[in-house]
Amino acid sequence: MKLDVKTFLDRLRSLSRVENRDVVRSELEGLLPADIAQGFERLSTSEGLNILRQLDDETAAQVLIELPTELARRYVAELPDTTLAFYLDILPMDDALELQEELEPDRFEALLEVIPREDALEIRRLMAFPEGSVGRLMTEDFFEADPEATMESILADIRLAPEGKYETVNDIYVIDGARHLLGVFSLRQAIRAEPSDVAKDVMVEAIVTVPATEEAEEAARLVAKYGFYAMPVVDARGRMLGIFTVDDAQEVVSEADTEDVLKLGAVSGDAEAYLSLSVWQLVKRRLPWLVALFVAETLTGSVLRYYGEKDDGLGIAPLTFFIPLIIGAGGNCGSQVTTTITRALALGEVGTSDWLVVVRRELPTALIIGLCLGTIGFLRAYFGWHSGLPLSMVVAGALPAVVLWAATVGSMLPIGAKRIGVDPAVMSAPFITTFVDATGLIIYFEIARRVLTGV
Amino acid sequence: MKLDVKTFLDRLRSLSRVENRDVVRSELEGLLPADIAQGFERLSTSEGLNILRQLDDETAAQVLIELPTELARRYVAELPDTTLAFYLDILPMDDALELQEELEPDRFEALLEVIPREDALEIRRLMAFPEGSVGRLMTEDFFEADPEATMESILADIRLAPEGKYETVNDIYVIDGARHLLGVFSLRQAIRAEPSDVAKDVMVEAIVTVPATEEAEEAARLVAKYGFYAMPVVDARGRMLGIFTVDDAQEVVSEADTEDVLKLGAVSGDAEAYLSLSVWQLVKRRLPWLVALFVAETLTGSVLRYYGEKDDGLGIAPLTFFIPLIIGAGGNCGSQVTTTITRALALGEVGTSDWLVVVRRELPTALIIGLCLGTIGFLRAYFGWHSGLPLSMVVAGALPAVVLWAATVGSMLPIGAKRIGVDPAVMSAPFITTFVDATGLIIYFEIARRVLTGV
Repeated sequence: MKLDVKTFLDRLRSLSRVENRDVVRSELEGLLPADIAQGFERLSTSEGLNILRQLDDETAAQVLIELPTELARRYVAELPDTTLAFYLDILPMDDALELQEELEPDRFEALLEVIPREDALEIRRLMAFPEGSVGRLMTEDFFEADPEATMESILADIRLAPEGKYETVNDIYVIDGARHLLGVFSLRQAIRAEPSDVAKDVMVEAIVTVPATEEAEEAARLVAKYGFYAMPVVDARGRMLGIFTVDDAQEVVSEADTEDVLKLGAVSGDAEAYLSLSVWQLVKRRLPWLVALFVAETLTGSVLRYYGEKDDGLGIAPLTFFIPLIIGAGGNCGSQVTTTITRALALGEVGTSDWLVVVRRELPTALIIGLCLGTIGFLRAYFGWHSGLPLSMVVAGALPAVVLWAATVGSMLPIGAKRIGVDPAVMSAPFITTFVDATGLIIYFEIARRVLTGV
Repeated sequence: MKLDVKTFLDRLRSLSRVENRDVVRSELEGLLPADIAQGFERLSTSEGLNILRQLDDETAAQVLIELPTELARRYVAELPDTTLAFYLDILPMDDALELQEELEPDRFEALLEVIPREDALEIRRLMAFPEGSVGRLMTEDFFEADPEATMESILADIRLAPEGKYETVNDIYVIDGARHLLGVFSLRQAIRAEPSDVAKDVMVEAIVTVPATEEAEEAARLVAKYGFYAMPVVDARGRMLGIFTVDDAQEVVSEADTEDVLKLGAVSGDAEAYLSLSVWQLVKRRLPWLVALFVAETLTGSVLRYYGEKDDGLGIAPLTFFIPLIIGAGGNCGSQVTTTITRALALGEVGTSDWLVVVRRELPTALIIGLCLGTIGFLRAYFGWHSGLPLSMVVAGALPAVVLWAATVGSMLPIGAKRIGVDPAVMSAPFITTFVDATGLIIYFEIARRVLTGV
């Protein structure tokens, strides 16, 4: 049961202009917060804010927490403290910590004062673990039992516990007086055992645990490897602190994979939904890498120059010194774009109908990047290698042209591939790079021919 | 609680020489099958087989199913039919289907005859769904209830069901007479409701379902998006067929991510554990891409040649025609290696102490690939572009040298980075490509200088 993205988006847009709470609420009733959140990625901040303000606080909070961090940050700044305090209070603890990352430290501290003391204390406890550790992502709301507890009393506890006190009761952890984890059994086993059986006889003893300071990615890969639903988190002395659940593990793995994919394509930064990033944020994630690679690539030019000047017999001309720079810049820029778009397509953040949205982000991004590289290239050619004004100008002009071309190819080919039913990942970085090599050189030589030989 | 890989491996190796069942079994008791399987990746087939044969059939089956497909295939071929029939019978249905992929169709058919009829029928039903669909990966062993069933009778059913009849009873699906899914509620809710409450009053109605023919990757991304533990799978007429659980979803997502990462680095093939692949399999996954990219890259050479011959004013010499070919081959080969190794490091398939194992696979692979590309390059230069014997030989010699160099850099830099605590993904394809560009050209020019000018 998938929503048609376009229809849903039109519906959200028109709802953002409705001022009647009841209409907005009833229209969105029955939708899952994750679906509403996905629609928000394509709304402007003011449109989204209009809808959020009409929703009841609980739904609004759930939508907010499903949003990509970058996007949530924009909304959070616009919402009143009273609303945020309510959010913080009703959110599961691990999500509350996510909210913390989106707020100014002062503001977050102030919020902790207005929520129930017990919740504030738990938040502070989890915040003590290093960022990126599993301790930050665990929940303390697991169900525990005494080794001597009978199944009857355990089921009675589950029956009488306040709604929402436990994140899950599917696994029951057996803890001794020193808070050491002795074993675990499932709720199903509790039901199937005799009511008078005690926990220590029902439980399984061999349990894989993870220390709270372990990196979340490492812990998440363990959850995946063993096919666990939840993994107990312990402190340095083996006392049980909480559980790390598979849904959080899956999010961690997916974000880590996205970051790795982007890094392989030379894009830095967190796993943020593509559409939630502005052109400036795209430039910020890509330009430092490109400049570093560009400067490194001038080494290749220096190699050419060295052999060209040292050895006339090889016949290497000044125009060719810049070939690695030009095709390198085009290839790297193309890699970045195709990697980013391919990942966004794989995660469903971008669809084939979004090509115009993609062009509107990629072309300005490429223009800014191209102008920066063109400037550096000119300086290098004119002042560094004393290549003379005409050749330096050829380089300065060719770079933005090649980068724009690479961005166009790198973004349109994966989307086109997906449209005709080919796996977009086949339009891989090496493929785009090779394609841009040949076509980028034509751009370079055509500019060179016009400027240098005046043909 | 992580195992020290080296110690564990030594232990496994010595166990593979022990002929006493009881010793082997008691040594491995308490270990999870996933852990034993991980050790197997580093054993030879005969060592692994010795251990498998000493284990009881259930444990052996569980180890087998945790192995990467390529590896499992090798063992399965060596195990007697009687053992395999036992495996097939005790394995969960979705794993049994995996086993099917590892066997000859005839042999699998024969096995289906010897296992209980009901299980054989379920396997045949699931096999009817297209490969890669969620229908193949679902389990039919979900717990269902009639809309009028009381909580008391549901809990009694759970209590009395044969061990292992249901994959999970954490969610209870409410199904009407036409097998349509009406709603769902958790086992916890069943316990918390009054014993006399009926299912239709306890259940939640809004349920996200997925058609059985949906691609498994698509369905798995939905499971991740919503944070579900299990997702109901329905047929075209909305009748419930089974559930797709989060552990299977996570495996699907991880494999799809691995395949996407490898494709971005121009490596084709399934997500197989790096160490389970032989040198020939590595060549098979890489060479077709490299040859295709190499042939495409000759286009760039043609562009250079065109401008070089057309326009003397640009001063482009024959030696430079081959620059894009040389640095392209080095860059693409380096990309493939660094992408493969980085992913294997991220998944924990390869550790920093495995550098020698990696070198022993990568260098022979690169040699084979380099010789192939060198041959194609020679043919292209000598017969295609009539570049003369000396220059053609320079190209033929430079290509294997650059490819070997690229493979060394591409495999050692990520491992080295991880060793000194830097994220190996930073040693990205563009980084390696740029580095190999400059150094690869030095190799090319040094060979050229010696051959062409005799210096």
